[in-house]
Amino acid sequence: MLPMTRTHSLAVVAGDGIGPEVTAQALAVLDVVAPAYDLAFDRTEYDLGARRWHATGETLPDSVLTEIRGHDAILLGAIGDPGVPSGVLERGLLLRLRFELDHYVNLRPSKLYPGVPTPLADSVLAKGDIDFVVVREGTEGPYVGNGGAIRVGTPHEMATEVSINTAFGVERVVRDAFARAQARPRRRLTLVHKNNVLVHAGHLWSRTVDAVAAEFPDVTVDYLHVDAATIFLATDPARFDVIVTDNLFGDILTDLAAAVTGGIGLAASGNINPDGTAPSMFEPVHGSAPDIAGQHRADPTAAILSGALLLDHLGVPEAAARITAAVEADIAGRAGSTTARSTEEVGAAIAAAVAGGVPVA
Amino acid sequence: MLPMTRTHSLAVVAGDGIGPEVTAQALAVLDVVAPAYDLAFDRTEYDLGARRWHATGETLPDSVLTEIRGHDAILLGAIGDPGVPSGVLERGLLLRLRFELDHYVNLRPSKLYPGVPTPLADSVLAKGDIDFVVVREGTEGPYVGNGGAIRVGTPHEMATEVSINTAFGVERVVRDAFARAQARPRRRLTLVHKNNVLVHAGHLWSRTVDAVAAEFPDVTVDYLHVDAATIFLATDPARFDVIVTDNLFGDILTDLAAAVTGGIGLAASGNINPDGTAPSMFEPVHGSAPDIAGQHRADPTAAILSGALLLDHLGVPEAAARITAAVEADIAGRAGSTTARSTEEVGAAIAAAVAGGVPVA
Ligand SMILES: CC(C)[C@H](C(=O)O)[C@@H](O)C(=O)O
Ligand SMILES: CC(C)[C@H](C(=O)O)[C@@H](O)C(=O)O
Repeated sequence: MLPMTRTHSLAVVAGDGIGPEVTAQALAVLDVVAPAYDLAFDRTEYDLGARRWHATGETLPDSVLTEIRGHDAILLGAIGDPGVPSGVLERGLLLRLRFELDHYVNLRPSKLYPGVPTPLADSVLAKGDIDFVVVREGTEGPYVGNGGAIRVGTPHEMATEVSINTAFGVERVVRDAFARAQARPRRRLTLVHKNNVLVHAGHLWSRTVDAVAAEFPDVTVDYLHVDAATIFLATDPARFDVIVTDNLFGDILTDLAAAVTGGIGLAASGNINPDGTAPSMFEPVHGSAPDIAGQHRADPTAAILSGALLLDHLGVPEAAARITAAVEADIAGRAGSTTARSTEEVGAAIAAAVAGGVPVA
Repeated sequence: MLPMTRTHSLAVVAGDGIGPEVTAQALAVLDVVAPAYDLAFDRTEYDLGARRWHATGETLPDSVLTEIRGHDAILLGAIGDPGVPSGVLERGLLLRLRFELDHYVNLRPSKLYPGVPTPLADSVLAKGDIDFVVVREGTEGPYVGNGGAIRVGTPHEMATEVSINTAFGVERVVRDAFARAQARPRRRLTLVHKNNVLVHAGHLWSRTVDAVAAEFPDVTVDYLHVDAATIFLATDPARFDVIVTDNLFGDILTDLAAAVTGGIGLAASGNINPDGTAPSMFEPVHGSAPDIAGQHRADPTAAILSGALLLDHLGVPEAAARITAAVEADIAGRAGSTTARSTEEVGAAIAAAVAGGVPVA
């Protein structure tokens, strides 16, 4: 190993369905970009997901979690298959990782790249470039798994879901979102909640944004109810710069955001622990898509862009930008093409563009 | 009064902002259509909303609620102004009415009328006609107001919101949705929830849909997570026929549904008590829009269509269809027109079309 090379340890959870297919491409692209920045990756693959659950009943054994903690970052493909009861792997594996590793910033950029087909009319696109980021809270809200049910299966069943929100948890993600807004040219932050109905949680969020805003006087702040936010995502997504919101609203808004910017095949995400007390985790927003698994038809772009977010997080933004530029060039080339490419062909094309050093915009 | 005339008592809550403007048009249209169906309306106006709150601090006095209960139906305009703290009128008036009057079916049809501008691309519109209805649960879920906060305003604040879901509450709305699906040509029902994360509430919903489905073998059922549902609303809304979902997801989905079918200026809703133990309430999905209040620019179409839902509920579907046909004709005439019409002009045009008896499609 060259003395100058910084080696990062990666925990790789390729997962189920198309997960392994797209993760292979993301890893290949990371390997191509690494040497130019004196980086190397030392990977450990973890067999977690539906296969393991079917075989052993395990979702995330404590010993595996401990091992994963020892890495610099995690790359995750996708989890789940229709044979596993809904919630088992989501709560037991994916959300457990996010919660245990304190991924309180779930970062989801949305950008409409030139040439990408979108479901939006030209009249909407004419309003401006779509380029925003959702900072979704990742460790609180209705996702905490605090709830239960009584008299299950009887006519008197009662089920609750408790959204838990703390000043500590809200403030740290709001502050992170403000910092991101401040670093962007438009310096605009939109809080999305439903503070006219969910008054306790909503007012905590609103008061926190008001308080933290005082530290960021150059950031313009506004507020939207979640229902109104979906309207704007469909009719004027260019209005958004940074959105900060709770775990559930962020889940909903980012799928819609992905849809309007060309689909979840392109949407990357980072589950970030900004304090560095545990490794952050990078994953495409899409799921395991069992219907197309094994057909080499999945678009690896979201996984590859998640690799770029990983590089950003590891402090190599130039390397991240190089991947993004390569993706952008590849996407531009897709316009008008009628030949469907395989997962591997798309990955190889992006890797080649990275190697060729497509100029960073 | 002619012996054949059926007189219905209407409680009218015109409310704030554009509420009174659009409600006046809805009432005028109801008056025009009534005689042809031997109907008459006996109205009582209730001064509720921001004005009253500012003047007296009251949201919904018990005595007023009791009076409102005595009516056959309620027509509501819109509630709220920026001078009232967020949540006061929503929880104290609007949601109180929905909960006290057991409006467990919040019915929100979405139809893209020919000629209406939409934010969707032609490629999406080419997939088929957009014509679906959301059956949003109205008396449970995260809207129950069960939650609270401790140490408010300190770094140790903790706020909860509890979603409450009962077999009783879920089953009755699911059964209503199945019946509506069965009465429609496509007979398709989509349950929307997030049962992979909100497992207790979500599994109650899923199990209930499975159980009730056995009684409606001719209805095709599917399930979508709420995040995926927003993707389809943007990329393939024609896939939906009847959606059944909880109170919060229904709030979010219906604003997005309104956006893709031409905006909340056209979106009507009924808060229905199907058991008839209390009056049902009809209201546009939009709010009080203080920014354009008093300018006679608000589109009264959603309020007028809410009047049609009211007639449907009162058992006069032919009268409802006549209003809908008049609205459809008016909307078709809007295409390509560049002159903005006032609230009153739109109302008068629709009233004239109703009077002229635009043929029901
Ligand atoms: C799979 C599911 C638990 C997950 C979520 O709801 O967070 C997914 O939808 C996402 O957005 O990453
Ligand atoms: C005003 C608000 C309480 C209400 C809701 O959330 O139900 C509104 O958004 C609606 O959809 O009717």
